[in-house]
This record gives sequence, C-alpha cells and structure tokens, in this order.
Amino acid sequence: MSTVRLLSDEELSEEARAVFADIRATRNSDFVNNFWRALAHNPVTLKRTWESIKAVMGPGALDPKIKEMIYIAVSIAHSCPYCIHSHTASARAKGMTEAEFHELIAVVGMASETNRLVTALGVPIDELFEVK
Amino acid sequence: MSTVRLLSDEELSEEARAVFADIRATRNSDFVNNFWRALAHNPVTLKRTWESIKAVMGPGALDPKIKEMIYIAVSIAHSCPYCIHSHTASARAKGMTEAEFHELIAVVGMASETNRLVTALGVPIDELFEVK
Amino acid sequence: MSTVRLLSDEELSEEARAVFADIRATRNSDFVNNFWRALAHNPVTLKRTWESIKAVMGPGALDPKIKEMIYIAVSIAHSCPYCIHSHTASARAKGMTEAEFHELIAVVGMASETNRLVTALGVPIDELFEVK
Amino acid sequence: MSTVRLLSDEELSEEARAVFADIRATRNSDFVNNFWRALAHNPVTLKRTWESIKAVMGPGALDPKIKEMIYIAVSIAHSCPYCIHSHTASARAKGMTEAEFHELIAVVGMASETNRLVTALGVPIDELFEVK
Amino acid sequence: MSTVRLLSDEELSEEARAVFADIRATRNSDFVNNFWRALAHNPVTLKRTWESIKAVMGPGALDPKIKEMIYIAVSIAHSCPYCIHSHTASARAKGMTEAEFHELIAVVGMASETNRLVTALGVPIDELFEVK
Amino acid sequence: MSTVRLLSDEELSEEARAVFADIRATRNSDFVNNFWRALAHNPVTLKRTWESIKAVMGPGALDPKIKEMIYIAVSIAHSCPYCIHSHTASARAKGMTEAEFHELIAVVGMASETNRLVTALGVPIDELFEVK
Repeated sequence: MSTVRLLSDEELSEEARAVFADIRATRNSDFVNNFWRALAHNPVTLKRTWESIKAVMGPGALDPKIKEMIYIAVSIAHSCPYCIHSHTASARAKGMTEAEFHELIAVVGMASETNRLVTALGVPIDELFEVK
Repeated sequence: MSTVRLLSDEELSEEARAVFADIRATRNSDFVNNFWRALAHNPVTLKRTWESIKAVMGPGALDPKIKEMIYIAVSIAHSCPYCIHSHTASARAKGMTEAEFHELIAVVGMASETNRLVTALGVPIDELFEVK
Repeated sequence: MSTVRLLSDEELSEEARAVFADIRATRNSDFVNNFWRALAHNPVTLKRTWESIKAVMGPGALDPKIKEMIYIAVSIAHSCPYCIHSHTASARAKGMTEAEFHELIAVVGMASETNRLVTALGVPIDELFEVK
Repeated sequence: MSTVRLLSDEELSEEARAVFADIRATRNSDFVNNFWRALAHNPVTLKRTWESIKAVMGPGALDPKIKEMIYIAVSIAHSCPYCIHSHTASARAKGMTEAEFHELIAVVGMASETNRLVTALGVPIDELFEVK
Repeated sequence: MSTVRLLSDEELSEEARAVFADIRATRNSDFVNNFWRALAHNPVTLKRTWESIKAVMGPGALDPKIKEMIYIAVSIAHSCPYCIHSHTASARAKGMTEAEFHELIAVVGMASETNRLVTALGVPIDELFEVK
Repeated sequence: MSTVRLLSDEELSEEARAVFADIRATRNSDFVNNFWRALAHNPVTLKRTWESIKAVMGPGALDPKIKEMIYIAVSIAHSCPYCIHSHTASARAKGMTEAEFHELIAVVGMASETNRLVTALGVPIDELFEVK
C-alpha cells in the first residue's frame, strides 16, 4: 500500500526515463526496484536522489559493502522495513556474509541499548572526548 | 547535567569496583569514562552491560573499527551526543581516518533522506527482496 | 492487525456514540475511519483526542491544508503509515496538489539528511540564532 | 537556549495567569517550571495541554507514580532531556525509589535493543498474538 | 516478510536448542515465538539476549506486569509493531486489565505530545531538577 | 561541543571557498552559519548538500516560508536543537509570525500524540485511504 501509484516503464516522463536508463546502466541490470517507480512522479527529486546515491555509495575511503551495512544500521534505527530489505539485498550482493549480517545487527542492538541508557542518565561528555 | 551523580572510584560498591578493574585491564588504560560512573549505581546493569559490550564489540566477522562506525551511525539516528562523541573517539583510536568519518556521516545522511522518502511514499517491498 | 478490536457503530458506549455523532456532523460525512473505532474502547481518551484535534486543526493563523501537510511531515518522521495515509487523504481533500505533495516530501527528506549531519557533527548553535 | 523567551509571572496574559493559578493550586506549590513559562506565549495551547495533563496523569487504573515512570520511558525514547529531568523529579516526589528508577531504565535499554533486533530481522507477528 | 528465514525446531543448532529448552522451561509453555526463531541463526546473540531478558524482566523492585507495560511504551515510541503485539500479549497474561492498557497508551500519547513541545521550545532545565 | 573543529574562512580549501561564496551571494549576507563551517572539512558533501538545499528550499509549488515550517516540524521530530533554532530563524526572516509558529508546534504536538496512539492500537489502514 502506497501513497502514490508505482509507475511502469511505459508511464515515465522523458526525464524519468533517462534516470531509469542510467540506473540500469550503472547497475548492469534491467531490474528497477519500486522505490524509483514511486519517486518517478517527481523527475526532479528522482534525478537528484539518484545522482546523490551514486556519488555517496560508490567506492571511496570506505568499501561499498561497508557503506551498505551502515545504510542498513540507519534504516533499522529509523524503522524502515523497505529500506532494510533492499539494502540487505544490496549488501549481500556485494559480499556481506551471514556472519557479518548477524554481527551488524548485534552491534545495532547494543548501541540502541546503551544510547537509551546514556540518555536516561543524562551523562555529561567527558573532557577527553572534546575536539579542539 | 545528569539524573544521577557520577560516582568516583572511592564511592564504588565492591561489585562495581570489580567491573571497573576489568574495564581498565581490557582497555589497558586507567581512564574510565562518565557512562560507567553513572551506571555504577546499579552494579547488576553495570556488569551485564559491560560484559555484553565486550562480547559484541570485540573482533569477529567484522573489524572492531567498522563496529565502532556502525555504533556511531546508530547513535546519530538516536540523537545521542554523548554516544556520538565517545564512539567517535573510540573509532579514531582504532584507526578511523577523517576521510572515513566524513564518508560515514555522508552515508548516514543519505540513508536518512531516502528512509523518509520511502516511508512517505509507502513503497511496497519488491518480491525480489524477499527471503524464502 | 491491531491490539484491540475495531468497534462497529452498534458496539459503541453512549459517550462514544456522542463523539461519533460530532465527528460525522463536523466532517459532514457518514464515514468514521478506523482510528476512532479503535480509540472508542476508551471514551475518555476518544473525546479528549477528538476535541483537541478539532481545536488544533481548524482554521487559525495557518490554513487547514498547510496544517495537514505539517501533520504528514511529522507522521513520516515518526514512521506511522496509517497516519501518513489518512492525513495525505485529508490534505488532498483540502486541496493539496500532487506537486505540493512531492515538494513536501522532498523537504522532509532534505531536513532528515541535514538533521543527521548536524547531529553527527555536534554543531554548536550560532549566537545569532539565540532568542533574548 | 530556547526558541521563545520564558515569561515571568508579570508578563502573563489574563488567560495564562488563570492556568498558572490552577497549576499552583493543583500541585499545592508556588513553583511553576520552565515548560509552562515557554508555553504561556500561546494561552490556548497552554490551557489545553495543562487540562489534558491533569486528566491523563491523575489517579485512575494506574498509580500516578507508575504513570510518571511510563512518561520517563517515552521521554528517553524521544531523546528529550528536559522531559526526563522533570518527570524523574516528579516520579521521585511521588515515591519512586532509586532501585525502581534503575530497573526502569534497564527495561528501557532492553526494550530498545530487542526493538531494533526485531525490526532488523523483520519478524512476522505470531498468530497467537492476534486480537480477534 | 523477514530478512532471514524463521527456524523450525528441527533446524536448530545444539546451542540454540539449549536456549529454546530454557525458554520453554522458564515460561512453562511449549510455544516459542517468532522472534527467537529468527534470532536462532546466531546462537551467541540468541543466548545473550535471552539471558538478559530473563534477568531484566524478572521480579525485582518493579512488578513484572509493570515492566511489560514499560516495554510496550518504549516499543510504541520505536514504532515496532511486533514488539507491541508480543509484549501486550505478555502484559495481559500477567494481569494487565483493558483499563490499564488504555491508560498506558493515553500516557504514552500525552508524553509524546509534550516531548515534542518541549523540544520545539528548547526549554532549559530548571535548576530545581538538577541532581547534585 | 562538536566532533570536528569549525573552520574559519582562512582555513577553507578552494572548493569549500567557492561554496561559501555562493552561500553568501544567494543569501545576500556575509554571515555563514556553523553548520557549513563544520561540513567544510568535506568539500564534496558540502557542495552536494548546499546545491540540494538550494534546489529543494527555493520557490516552487510551496512558499519558501511554508517549506521552512515543514523543516522545523521534521527537526523537532528528530530532536535536533541546532536545526530547530536555525530554521526557526530562517522562517521568521521569511515572515513567519509568532501566531504561525505557535500553531505549527501545536500541530506537531498533536500529530506526535495521535501517531503514537495509532501505533499502539495497530490501526489497519481504511480501504478508502488506498491509492489505486
């Protein structure tokens, strides 16, 4: 159930069609997932979001697989089931093992617990952690 | 400003003192940060939390530096400044470069944006992402 | 799937029946959506919530359509699919265009990204932004 | 640092003054905390919020002390330091012991951890938990 | 829809089988809910989580029913439908009445409203609420 | 307290300097707030974020003042005090009245309350709200 219809390839505007073509070329796959089909109603946001994702998630100081795992961690904390599913699929496609996935979520769980304990206790930041 | 007083070494119960000793031995440092000094009022939670952290954050399928970076990502999403500061310090101590830190937060920002777009649009999970 | 049964008109207590009558009169429609049917188990909360909604969401300094759009923004940030769907329907009924909806969610996405960047960086509030 | 000035007793509108008088009478204390001094710029919201708080937090099926503890739990999950501090003070004034406070936050931490594990794993709701 | 398969009793590793046996013995019931069947892929996290839950949620300064209600409050604030359903079932099994459930969620709603008002206004913590 | 130093104009890289010049030209003001001074360590993210903000927050189907108000609503829900302060200043500069600000936060508070009630009750989406 969505708040807008998912667009099929036939329904795309010209600008959206160009973005879909780049998604397919970049990923070397014909499959375009539902997120882009919902976003395609607004070609401006579609293009900006895709360009940003390509820039941020590509290789750099961090390995693309690690980036997908960070993406999953954030998506869990934001309670986004679609995002968790799509980026878990991406991370697995980029080589994340099941052992890595299970350690990832154990860290997410642990951080969630201590985040709330720290907030509950109102712990002041240690001087040693200050950046000068 | 905190909801409990931070305990000095002199004020620790015997059980809390033993946990502090293990923190110091494990980290090979005399410094014990404020989180543990607030938690020390409740030696049971103190001990359980420390044992869990040691088990989860140690080496395994994922590198400890990567685990700290995932911890930071979750702490950002949960708006916990203390946690962000303490785990950024830990990640840097474990070798995270400034370039890696800046890529980390760029991924967190990007994920936050698309998480909310997906939720706004109510995107249904693609069949391809299903685990069978 | 819900944690309480949805009540039909026949199952309402007298106090709940009076609130439903006011909902119908105020909206000039016989349709009462599921939220009220779940809340009707507790006529006190039902009445208080409905009275508050009527007071807050009616015309004032802000246009009711704009209020619905702010409601949607908050519901996205809180990950509440029901709320997003019901208030998107209300906003559309009050004249929100598709172009406005797409700009709304683009702003929500952008704010989410920079909110997390700011939190990650621990940016101190500029003196200029202080209220005196 | 706030986004509006805190109002002193001398600056209150007539409607706000009446609400402050009721806060003082209900609590049997001259002290009015900063939340109400910030909210007093808008007497309508001030009055509605105070009336709601009085109705919701008073005695009922649950003990007022327990209600304050639930309030603290929600305030931790929403990262609201002011709310945590003010309701921890209220809960202590209503008899919450330090042992109860420490158990409360241990439960909040535990729930936060498993909430995120469940979300990460996408666990489907067991049929047994369905309400019919 | 989940990110891992749910494991049947036949598929459990030896360590997971031992944890399941303890869950059954502790709860005096043969039923093991889906959360544990998803977590069972990682016997280390399974065991640690179960041991922690047993320790935190058992009798202490707070009644187990009250602990379940706090758990529900946190799960609502974190938008975890599975957690809300499973802990509402537990709380009811431990004696939570429908009147108590409805007061619980009224407090959660009220706290959510004032949490956001406080954050919007940037209310500074009153000196009286400081712990020294 | 921040996790990186704020950069002065003298410390900017050439790419960061160009972005700062565009910020000043676009806003017709010499003042550059701390967010950009923290982000300037990473000129790539600085440039991408500034370009996106310019595109999203400029005039379109929605008035820039309304966009700032939506930004504030999201920033409240994400507990970002810096963001609330900076965008409240922007909204006021673009003509938001105090009456509008107070209605805005009343809507945010109301939405937060019903978001959590809906989540607690697990209300199923009405068929009428479905988009076909």
